[in-house]
Amino acid sequence: MAFDAELNGHHFVIDADEKTGGENLGPRPKGLLLSSLAGCTGMDVVSILKKMKIENCVFNLEVTADSTEEHPKTYHTIHLNYIFEGNDLPVDKLKRAVELSETRYCGVSAMLRKAAEIKTRIILNGKDI
Amino acid sequence: MAFDAELNGHHFVIDADEKTGGENLGPRPKGLLLSSLAGCTGMDVVSILKKMKIENCVFNLEVTADSTEEHPKTYHTIHLNYIFEGNDLPVDKLKRAVELSETRYCGVSAMLRKAAEIKTRIILNGKDI
Repeated sequence: MAFDAELNGHHFVIDADEKTGGENLGPRPKGLLLSSLAGCTGMDVVSILKKMKIENCVFNLEVTADSTEEHPKTYHTIHLNYIFEGNDLPVDKLKRAVELSETRYCGVSAMLRKAAEIKTRIILNGKDI
Repeated sequence: MAFDAELNGHHFVIDADEKTGGENLGPRPKGLLLSSLAGCTGMDVVSILKKMKIENCVFNLEVTADSTEEHPKTYHTIHLNYIFEGNDLPVDKLKRAVELSETRYCGVSAMLRKAAEIKTRIILNGKDI
């Protein structure tokens, strides 16, 4: 079940898990949709914050999804958390950066939103903002 | 711009290209949608062909996409080629396996089809079937 995937000259392995005939040599293919979403909006936010002269923060994204039970199994809800850590970070600018990505720049978000609801949280130092 | 992505316990790097502030340490995030699609439908086809007792073939997938020019830049058309090589392969069964994935099993295909047109070709030993 494993495939060698090539993208932009980089190689990585995609595989099924043991339950479905794979060997878990790499991640499941469907989950790559979520990595794609996190990477796309994450780079937007980094880029926008840099233009806003905000660079002194730690930034992670967590993304999970709820799937339908019936074939074809699709994500009906995607949970996307933007997680910032740092001192004296301007709440309004963090929110604005995320909003700009979600509404204007992130092509992956625009595509996946046609198939699933994307629920977003923005978390600063452990608290929702 | 680079992110360390973790999915199913596997790590890989996503990065922007040099033109957009990255260092090309890994693939672009949006393209992962296409890797996801190829992996998902590819595993379906492998699994279905195995049940059909067809295992003596080489199987690759090529997937490319055409993007809009305006932000958010999305794929409006995805070109998905199923490429088989082998001797005495039953054309009807190859086509049936692809059809079953596209219409019944592939969740990624079902999701992306809501955002883009997916144009499919099935190629056996260099010729469209």
